[in-house]
Amino acid sequence: MSILEKIHTSADIKKLNEEELEPLCSEIRAFLIEHVSKTGGHLASNLGAVELTVALHRVYNTAVDRLVFDVGHQCYVHKIITGRKERFSTLRQYGGISGFPKPYESPDDAFIAGHASNSVSVALGMAKARSLLHQDYDVVAFIGDGALTGGLSYEGLVSAAASGEPIVILLNDNNMSIDMNVGGTASLLQKLRVKPSYMHFKRAYRQMFYGMPSLYSFNHRAKEWVKGKLLPENMFSAMGYEYLGPVDGHDVHQMETVLRWARDMKKPVIVHAVTVKGKGCSYAEEHPERYHGVGPFDPVSGEVYGGGESFSDIFGKTLCALAEQDERITAVTAAMTSGTGLDRFGLRYPDRFSDVGIAEGHAAAMASGMAKQGLIPVFAVYSSFLQRSYDMLIHDVSLQKLHVVFGVDRAGLVGSDGETHHGIYDVNFLRSVPGMTVLCPASFGELHAMLEEAIYRIEGPVAVRYPRGGEGEYRDICTEDEQIVRTGTDLTIVCYGVMINDVLSAVRKLDEKGISAEVIKLNKITYAKFPRVFASLEKTGRLLMPEEVCAIGCVGRHLLAQASEAGIRLQAARFLNLGDNIVPHGTRAQLLRDYRVDADAMVKTAEEICGL
Amino acid sequence: MSILEKIHTSADIKKLNEEELEPLCSEIRAFLIEHVSKTGGHLASNLGAVELTVALHRVYNTAVDRLVFDVGHQCYVHKIITGRKERFSTLRQYGGISGFPKPYESPDDAFIAGHASNSVSVALGMAKARSLLHQDYDVVAFIGDGALTGGLSYEGLVSAAASGEPIVILLNDNNMSIDMNVGGTASLLQKLRVKPSYMHFKRAYRQMFYGMPSLYSFNHRAKEWVKGKLLPENMFSAMGYEYLGPVDGHDVHQMETVLRWARDMKKPVIVHAVTVKGKGCSYAEEHPERYHGVGPFDPVSGEVYGGGESFSDIFGKTLCALAEQDERITAVTAAMTSGTGLDRFGLRYPDRFSDVGIAEGHAAAMASGMAKQGLIPVFAVYSSFLQRSYDMLIHDVSLQKLHVVFGVDRAGLVGSDGETHHGIYDVNFLRSVPGMTVLCPASFGELHAMLEEAIYRIEGPVAVRYPRGGEGEYRDICTEDEQIVRTGTDLTIVCYGVMINDVLSAVRKLDEKGISAEVIKLNKITYAKFPRVFASLEKTGRLLMPEEVCAIGCVGRHLLAQASEAGIRLQAARFLNLGDNIVPHGTRAQLLRDYRVDADAMVKTAEEICGL
Repeated sequence: MSILEKIHTSADIKKLNEEELEPLCSEIRAFLIEHVSKTGGHLASNLGAVELTVALHRVYNTAVDRLVFDVGHQCYVHKIITGRKERFSTLRQYGGISGFPKPYESPDDAFIAGHASNSVSVALGMAKARSLLHQDYDVVAFIGDGALTGGLSYEGLVSAAASGEPIVILLNDNNMSIDMNVGGTASLLQKLRVKPSYMHFKRAYRQMFYGMPSLYSFNHRAKEWVKGKLLPENMFSAMGYEYLGPVDGHDVHQMETVLRWARDMKKPVIVHAVTVKGKGCSYAEEHPERYHGVGPFDPVSGEVYGGGESFSDIFGKTLCALAEQDERITAVTAAMTSGTGLDRFGLRYPDRFSDVGIAEGHAAAMASGMAKQGLIPVFAVYSSFLQRSYDMLIHDVSLQKLHVVFGVDRAGLVGSDGETHHGIYDVNFLRSVPGMTVLCPASFGELHAMLEEAIYRIEGPVAVRYPRGGEGEYRDICTEDEQIVRTGTDLTIVCYGVMINDVLSAVRKLDEKGISAEVIKLNKITYAKFPRVFASLEKTGRLLMPEEVCAIGCVGRHLLAQASEAGIRLQAARFLNLGDNIVPHGTRAQLLRDYRVDADAMVKTAEEICGL
Repeated sequence: MSILEKIHTSADIKKLNEEELEPLCSEIRAFLIEHVSKTGGHLASNLGAVELTVALHRVYNTAVDRLVFDVGHQCYVHKIITGRKERFSTLRQYGGISGFPKPYESPDDAFIAGHASNSVSVALGMAKARSLLHQDYDVVAFIGDGALTGGLSYEGLVSAAASGEPIVILLNDNNMSIDMNVGGTASLLQKLRVKPSYMHFKRAYRQMFYGMPSLYSFNHRAKEWVKGKLLPENMFSAMGYEYLGPVDGHDVHQMETVLRWARDMKKPVIVHAVTVKGKGCSYAEEHPERYHGVGPFDPVSGEVYGGGESFSDIFGKTLCALAEQDERITAVTAAMTSGTGLDRFGLRYPDRFSDVGIAEGHAAAMASGMAKQGLIPVFAVYSSFLQRSYDMLIHDVSLQKLHVVFGVDRAGLVGSDGETHHGIYDVNFLRSVPGMTVLCPASFGELHAMLEEAIYRIEGPVAVRYPRGGEGEYRDICTEDEQIVRTGTDLTIVCYGVMINDVLSAVRKLDEKGISAEVIKLNKITYAKFPRVFASLEKTGRLLMPEEVCAIGCVGRHLLAQASEAGIRLQAARFLNLGDNIVPHGTRAQLLRDYRVDADAMVKTAEEICGL
């Protein structure tokens, strides 16, 4: 019987002998590779966090103590340890366990985490609640160095230091966020990392560990020793933290000891652990960015299966081609170089390429400065991460009508990353930015054409939004504001983006039932007037609009209100969208079916409003 | 003739003798006190920035070089110097000059600035544009220490350091943001400030300054000397900056010299100047927070005129009263303790009060952690500053349906602070947060009642939004979701919040004209169904809805779409709102008149749709 087989809860980890810990870590690594190679997921970060997570569970009881992950995708080992090992083959699958911490899944998951940099803030709130309500548990924030590039983590760090609340911040420093770590944060950590004391730490702690007479003097000695040996003035200690590190994050015994010290100090403490992303798996260590978020792959060779061309690829290629002709074009990304297809741009035009780390607010504000002085900045960003730039969209970009172009990737449902990553709010918040134009390509050709249009033929702020993955049945290229895809007489179906594929499928079924649908695809959803839609509605008297957005973002209701203001009277209007729901993970098709926004739902609704 | 009378452009400052600079600074202070005592405005910060601004204009040509303010309210001296002295009596008045930098007002204003912490990001974008387009100008970010508490400035600082771009960041450190500076940032700066070298800096630089043989060796010597004497390792130098300071920010000669050094270093440089907020004005030095943003006052005694009770006062009082009965209630603010009426709470319940600095994202995330562990956090924040928390509203608060209460102050038009401060987007972005309830009190009594309702009788995230200033004619207390204020037969006027006062005024005029209006006030604008409104629309057939929001935030169109979906056919529907406009400064009454959302516009529109 393997050691891992004995682990069902956090408590089981605490029962193990010291000698069993290293073998357990090896078993966990094999388990991770075996399962993630089938389901896909975040491999490299979790391989790097095995010893840290085992050590955390040796010291803390996560059912009571609060372990706040940041970023969430390094929670796999935690899930394996806390009762979800048997369900691990359902990882990120429809109805299965999530790839991120979810309190609804387990009381051991203290808080959700999907994006980055929020853990210290959340943990501080929890620590304050603990103290004010006179309760007794420990609070730990487990944060990656990539997340430290986000200003939110800086806000949390200064606030937690000032509070004096007992709280431990475990910094998993792998010198790598999702893409290579950039900027001053990396430089700050680099200075800490190279201290010679690190090399001797292991031996020294062992000497001390085995010689300790009692807990009190152990802690006292530990603190004094650490202060003397390891703690020159640095940013963290200047803020007011006890700083412990750097520590070898793959030495599970050392990690356990240091975490105990940190816990027992009863004040704000930073534990700085140095790890290797992809640790213990040759191909993942060599190309950690390739195995960051990965689809199914061969567990032996590491060969990643399948994966055709994506909208992100087309975006990157198009931007490179345009940039070759125009030196004013610059590209900006927030730690998503590969994800947004900008690798090639970064290599070819390094001076015109800025990866600012997980700092979307800064990216948007910096792009505003670029635009004000004559560049044409293109900020490529995932829809859900652009939420962090909302204030800058209004304050820095829009109020001066600056021509900043946003490549809004992962618009719509993103699939297996689930609720924290779905791009279902951007339609609403982008349309609320004064002067913003929003373009919605549905094919690779349209993305190419609309990106060029955004750069050269539209004034002020402009967003081009496109989904994760590749194109569907629809492959035409049209950049008219309103595109009549086919004419019909019984009802008008209005859509935008790749929803056209589902609409085309629905229309074929409606044809069979004798219902004649007119289909209009909006290519610009911020267009103030929609004369073709209005003309069509006057003809058919019925509107059906399916959208992959939250209810409030629904463009359809605005259309209806405008039509109504214009005096157009409809027999029926129906809007299919995701409502006010919090949409979990699953494939786009499964989720659209569940929320009744798929072709079948369109057919059913069309039948209803046409009186069949 | 005074020295100030000779100053019409930045160039005039450069023509002055050294001996004229200190008298000029005194004249500027007198000018500021004289004018701001009449117009109101940001007095204390500008008194503290006189020498810094004069020194900047000695070194830079702001018509070409880019001087990016952060926060914008310390730009008054800059405006006086750059051609707006004669118009200074119109400061913050309708049609007059703005209290913040505005490129449309002068080419010397490089960028807008209303909120805080964006200057380094913007300046970096400008510096990159300068280099990539092979142009030749200098870029300076002028940032206050309060703005450093915002994570956005940290993102900008790390990115600018990593870029290596020539850029000067002038840090105006007055140990004070708007309220007292809190947390680790203050602690970091404190450590720099107390270095003994500061005390000897003045003499040393003078010795060197007068002995310099040539520019090259001057710069070389300056750099080496500064490095040796003044630059121990600190956070800024660890990031990669040349750090110059701390410097006495009220010594205009010293500031000029250090700024020249910084400019000529041609790399990322931080100049750390220490100043006194309110400098040279006894009452402002003594109570800088009182003269931060102040209404008209007596220039001799400092006595502030008028100012009745405000919604903010009621909010603070109510929260104190509720907190007395319930130890779970905690208050959170982001550097707006006085502005949001929380002074009393902070004094009475210091442990349960968190002022986190200008860090709205952190405030929301921390509140989520508090709520998750059993506290009832109330985050009091200005509507336009809450834009910085948009992502956290969705990601940290909403997805887990946490009970965080938002006191959204300055909702609607804020008056003299203008476009960067108007709270006209929150209705839209708050309603897009899944599960968010939005309450809209219109009287002091309703604010009291609805804050209690929000805390105890509503689940999940909830916002109570209320305006700047005091209540109007409407003084009733009603917490029904839909409140029929009066019945009528010809049309239905729907409104929420203090717009009821304008509606009541319009209705009286309509009565005189024989038009019978039914008035419904929505107290909860996220209520999913509006049966009373629907019933009223079925009766009158006409809808008029005036709103103090941007067009996309307009609740009216959603109402109309819902009514239409429910099969209600209207003869007419009209929505009065601020459109897609960027609304400048002016009184609420003046702006509502200009954008046709006032009582007269309601009367005119009602007459139109009623066929008169």
